[in-house]
Amino acid sequence: MEFERVKGTRDFTADEMKLREHVISQIKSVFEKRAFKPLQTPAMEKWETLAGKDVAGDELLSETYNWLDQGDRRIGLRYDLTVPMARFIAMNPNISLPFKRYACDRVWRYEKMREGRYREFYQFDIDVVGSPSMLAEAECISTAIEALETVFTKADFVVKVNNRKIASALLESLGLRKKEQLQGAMRSIDKMRKLSKEELRKEFAQYDIPAKTADTILKTLGKQGKPEEILKALDKDLPGVAELQELIDYLKSFDVLDKVEIDLTIVRGIAYYTGTVYETYFKGREDLGSICSGGRYDTLLKTFTGRDIPAVGISIGIERVVDLLKDKTDVSFSVDYFVANVDKTVLPTAIEIAENLRKKGYVVEMDLMDRKFGKQMEYANKINAKHVVIVGPKDLAEKKVTVKNMSDGKEEKKSVDSFARR
Amino acid sequence: MEFERVKGTRDFTADEMKLREHVISQIKSVFEKRAFKPLQTPAMEKWETLAGKDVAGDELLSETYNWLDQGDRRIGLRYDLTVPMARFIAMNPNISLPFKRYACDRVWRYEKMREGRYREFYQFDIDVVGSPSMLAEAECISTAIEALETVFTKADFVVKVNNRKIASALLESLGLRKKEQLQGAMRSIDKMRKLSKEELRKEFAQYDIPAKTADTILKTLGKQGKPEEILKALDKDLPGVAELQELIDYLKSFDVLDKVEIDLTIVRGIAYYTGTVYETYFKGREDLGSICSGGRYDTLLKTFTGRDIPAVGISIGIERVVDLLKDKTDVSFSVDYFVANVDKTVLPTAIEIAENLRKKGYVVEMDLMDRKFGKQMEYANKINAKHVVIVGPKDLAEKKVTVKNMSDGKEEKKSVDSFARR
Repeated sequence: MEFERVKGTRDFTADEMKLREHVISQIKSVFEKRAFKPLQTPAMEKWETLAGKDVAGDELLSETYNWLDQGDRRIGLRYDLTVPMARFIAMNPNISLPFKRYACDRVWRYEKMREGRYREFYQFDIDVVGSPSMLAEAECISTAIEALETVFTKADFVVKVNNRKIASALLESLGLRKKEQLQGAMRSIDKMRKLSKEELRKEFAQYDIPAKTADTILKTLGKQGKPEEILKALDKDLPGVAELQELIDYLKSFDVLDKVEIDLTIVRGIAYYTGTVYETYFKGREDLGSICSGGRYDTLLKTFTGRDIPAVGISIGIERVVDLLKDKTDVSFSVDYFVANVDKTVLPTAIEIAENLRKKGYVVEMDLMDRKFGKQMEYANKINAKHVVIVGPKDLAEKKVTVKNMSDGKEEKKSVDSFARR
Repeated sequence: MEFERVKGTRDFTADEMKLREHVISQIKSVFEKRAFKPLQTPAMEKWETLAGKDVAGDELLSETYNWLDQGDRRIGLRYDLTVPMARFIAMNPNISLPFKRYACDRVWRYEKMREGRYREFYQFDIDVVGSPSMLAEAECISTAIEALETVFTKADFVVKVNNRKIASALLESLGLRKKEQLQGAMRSIDKMRKLSKEELRKEFAQYDIPAKTADTILKTLGKQGKPEEILKALDKDLPGVAELQELIDYLKSFDVLDKVEIDLTIVRGIAYYTGTVYETYFKGREDLGSICSGGRYDTLLKTFTGRDIPAVGISIGIERVVDLLKDKTDVSFSVDYFVANVDKTVLPTAIEIAENLRKKGYVVEMDLMDRKFGKQMEYANKINAKHVVIVGPKDLAEKKVTVKNMSDGKEEKKSVDSFARR
């Protein structure tokens, strides 16, 4: 019988875990310094929560693992960490605001399999719940920038910021009113960074948007670059522009403006964003897609709580971040001492020595396989032990052990007492 | 609409997470010092893996969440961390032995709801795969003891050790042969620590075991106490006794014998244990059940790999450990500085100060809510900020800020330059 993993899932070996945990803990430190705190919610949620009105689109729900449990209730695996947080806030109406939480945890989606896509993967989110101020998005963006600068020693990325209200207002001013047309136009705008002008016209035409209107959209929104320049060219009375200006002013105070551009084509696919949106690209690696995205969602929490609770968040694409750091970050497990026994008679002393070294904080391995001495030395070599303590009857008779430095092969006799605790 | 969690699942708030992560990271350090390394496997496994022959009993499988995925393949949520590890080893036949791994992760079981039971919970396991030597169980037991002693400052617990072969041999010598009778007898033996002699006779009678035979079992196995004493009273030729003796000798070298007793009634419910078994009880809190259990399972891996691969493991009941440490361990989030702004004109400086303090490593919170100054001070008080930096236009005109120590209420003027970076 062949045993296999579920498609789209992964096993993480020790060195892969070491890197993941190293990266995650670096990012957590940044988040906690900025007074974001952890909230952990369960993997399973009731279907009513996952499929709440205006929460997830049909496509996402079709990718959501769900089943009837043994008590005949439909439950599912969460597809993101935002909806469980919203459910938590609904269950805890007296929570103190702003609620600044982070979460790094698994989510599941039955997606079409392709390179770099998984059906079980991690999201790493921060959110500020309760604040209508652009200060909240400035805090999210600066936090993400600091996190990326912490994990990448040379971090050449740009956060592309926009406000959805600008595109919405433009579309409306151009006479687009039908919901389907507006949504289609938004999707087409999102493709402006990838498609040619000709392809884009075709895209817009799909939604009965005339070429002339399409051209105006392309011309007005086809702008990206230094925030001051873009803002200068924008009509100050257009909805969203004042918010964008305020956000940029704050980001200047946060001293992160060198990492920020305005890109009016960033509108994000997810329907629940209401204002500020952002995506992050590594220069020269735009093919990876956005490494870090999010935005303001001022209406989602009303679905869950019945109250107007503004919120804004950002999500670090931790899987891609770890992929990018692979081969570049040297974190691996190492063994300080291997304690070898020449024969079984010295085992009690070998164990004592191993235990004593561990008490001192060293990573220590010993033979657990009843292997002969030669095999033990081979194993010590294979696991890259830095030192081997050789415990043998002859040495022991003189109250000595031999310590071998595995990098230069030098051996030295030491007193047992310096290693064993008794 | 009311939103609820799935029954038997929990949300962990910031302070709960802080305690959990503190405990988990302490235990991980002990494991890594002893050269156990992490392996992380997915939450979902194929049904063929979870329901493999001789792997999980019908009861456990009936509690296992499972469903047909969108591609019509039956998958389920793992009920433990051992079976996924076995599947991993089957997929990686050339893995270097001994394979010493730890895992701390979620598992799921649709169990009857009662106090302290969850349908989503964590297991924290170590296993030594590949070694037939009693050294491997000695390593597991010593590791678990060090872990418990590390997280509990006063850890008054006892590890009750046994070898299943002793009970098996006794039952056979008493003429019990039928599989059902043997399994029933094992289950009854496991109840010896809880039931009266009269109740136990009834238990054995259920499996057609005569009262006289039952009495012999109760008399022979009804022993627990200091290892030397129990071993002295045991027939050395009885299968399992030599192994138990060897294990106790090793545990003596590991210097943990003061935490160990032999209890011949420990046989563990799980069918796959083949030799050594152990459970751990807190003195005076035996009602909690075993805090830390496991044993040797020399045949399970054959089901997955087709090869004889001996293995032994121990699992720390991390949920119970965390419950026991609640209210006893003081780990909580704290805020070093809250940066308050007297009005919006000073926001740029307030942001600079907050960012600069964060760069120095402090946990810093600032107003994100556009709150008035008075409300900000109330908030700083509520979140127990240690200091508040008050940034106001008057002070700023003199290039000063006011720093308030929240524990004694004292205020001090400081130069802006000592806080702001520019």
